[in-house]
Amino acid sequence: MSLRIIATGGTFDKHYDPLTGALVFADSILPAAIAQARLRSKPVIEALLALDSVDMQDSHREQIAVACERAPESHIVIVHGTDTMRESAERVAAAQLQKTIVLTGAMVPYRVNGSDALFNLGFACAAAQLAAPGVYIAMNGELFMWDNVIKNRAAGHFQTRHPIAQNTR
Amino acid sequence: MSLRIIATGGTFDKHYDPLTGALVFADSILPAAIAQARLRSKPVIEALLALDSVDMQDSHREQIAVACERAPESHIVIVHGTDTMRESAERVAAAQLQKTIVLTGAMVPYRVNGSDALFNLGFACAAAQLAAPGVYIAMNGELFMWDNVIKNRAAGHFQTRHPIAQNTR
Amino acid sequence: MSLRIIATGGTFDKHYDPLTGALVFADSILPAAIAQARLRSKPVIEALLALDSVDMQDSHREQIAVACERAPESHIVIVHGTDTMRESAERVAAAQLQKTIVLTGAMVPYRVNGSDALFNLGFACAAAQLAAPGVYIAMNGELFMWDNVIKNRAAGHFQTRHPIAQNTR
Amino acid sequence: MSLRIIATGGTFDKHYDPLTGALVFADSILPAAIAQARLRSKPVIEALLALDSVDMQDSHREQIAVACERAPESHIVIVHGTDTMRESAERVAAAQLQKTIVLTGAMVPYRVNGSDALFNLGFACAAAQLAAPGVYIAMNGELFMWDNVIKNRAAGHFQTRHPIAQNTR
Repeated sequence: MSLRIIATGGTFDKHYDPLTGALVFADSILPAAIAQARLRSKPVIEALLALDSVDMQDSHREQIAVACERAPESHIVIVHGTDTMRESAERVAAAQLQKTIVLTGAMVPYRVNGSDALFNLGFACAAAQLAAPGVYIAMNGELFMWDNVIKNRAAGHFQTRHPIAQNTR
Repeated sequence: MSLRIIATGGTFDKHYDPLTGALVFADSILPAAIAQARLRSKPVIEALLALDSVDMQDSHREQIAVACERAPESHIVIVHGTDTMRESAERVAAAQLQKTIVLTGAMVPYRVNGSDALFNLGFACAAAQLAAPGVYIAMNGELFMWDNVIKNRAAGHFQTRHPIAQNTR
Repeated sequence: MSLRIIATGGTFDKHYDPLTGALVFADSILPAAIAQARLRSKPVIEALLALDSVDMQDSHREQIAVACERAPESHIVIVHGTDTMRESAERVAAAQLQKTIVLTGAMVPYRVNGSDALFNLGFACAAAQLAAPGVYIAMNGELFMWDNVIKNRAAGHFQTRHPIAQNTR
Repeated sequence: MSLRIIATGGTFDKHYDPLTGALVFADSILPAAIAQARLRSKPVIEALLALDSVDMQDSHREQIAVACERAPESHIVIVHGTDTMRESAERVAAAQLQKTIVLTGAMVPYRVNGSDALFNLGFACAAAQLAAPGVYIAMNGELFMWDNVIKNRAAGHFQTRHPIAQNTR
């Protein structure tokens, strides 16, 4: 089962710049992360964007949706900033592709001690292979439908938008 | 969806002992790994065994199967050494539980630079939530059925036992 | 030989804040760094300030000089931001203490992969024990006199201020 | 001031071999460690041996002494296993070179989380530049004369051989 991973930037992929003291984008760390994960069947890694998700415009989300559509693979992981991950998921969902597309990211950059990036990437790679076609967000060890998730910024995690409705099902 | 993670030892959980220079078992690192992963719904972590998988006897595999049966959860991840992961998976499968049980481990200990442990744990946690009831092995970014996987020791990865038969399906 | 380490902040001691995505100060990592270094004779760690060195005012430098003077130890390491490390060294030197005082810091935070922090701390701890009384800056594997060093911001390293004069000696 | 670093193996330089699960020697990590330390004046790195220090024979110690003698540099760091570091220091001291030679190593490999390797390397690099000619061991944040140090194997640290005599000075 072939998998594509699309890098768009976000906390996951931030590098520390010693000259400026800022967290910036450079070459994506996804090839290094995938090597570390020892995947036998190497996914295609597409470095599409390198943006903080707060800086993403509609045109960028359009690019992401087009990249998903053009990809020959039916199983796609998108590495994305957490702040507007939901908005990009919504835009990708609007393309109504018959693919399993999982957005993930990190609360702590891959290069910082104690990062959740590698766990999230592993979780998303499994979800992209196992979940039914649709658009999802994989964060905090849970797989959320794109239309039932919010980022709780104060707490720093993702949660379902309508938890009560869920419980009554 | 509640998840149980059962620690049994293996490379994943090895610590470096500065006094002897050996890789040994101490308290499981799973609570630290789960905290790093920022799970919102904390899984139950059961420290059942702390063994190299080459040292596992039938009685140990029996213990693992019993732990899976007794667990109130229907979604279980077992962290296990890679060398006899398949044998333990077979023993657990023999218990014929209506649960999704995913064995995983690592080729490089969690505490060593460049470890695949956290990716594998993420992958296994997703698979345990998403796959149909059954017993699986999650390694190298793939989910294998327990009865169609071998560890290729020379190459250091897991692969399907009958790849040709698979291709003709 | 007893040693005091005074924390004042700087890149060395920056933490990543998952909620804001910023590098911030929290409890100093110096106790953890010293434990990692396996020192047998534990230095006194004094958490004096937690500032970016660009935010240091004269009053802060005064505090640092007073802390050095009040310390019962004659061998002192100051962990400091690199941008105004030289200015603080100058202020400490003005106090004319008969002590060996070594300022150090890091170009990459201790908590970020590939950090120079632990090397610099080791270098500074040795220099504080071995160099003659005076005020020094230890960075990039060199020990500089406080009055013959500049930070080359474009290159991201410290160098002697008067390299030609040195060469003609 | 030019510095030479001689790699001889030891815990410092151990790599984890995923295929065998053993800690082994491969290419020395010293070039990576020195790059991480951001040294401006690059030391010469000489990969002389790659041995556990328990496996060192007299002929190996002879090789180390000869390497120190032949080196054009007067300031030398030797990265060495801790178990027989003292014996090698004694052999190097017998060569009676007018050089500052500092042996160091690590209790935890550079590649394992929480390693003391980088601190020790920084400490040794400073000591090799600052101490009077002689042969020393730099471990646990202290600089020991080669003839007044033992490794306390039970405690996992180095200490002076004659601590009482020292106190009465």
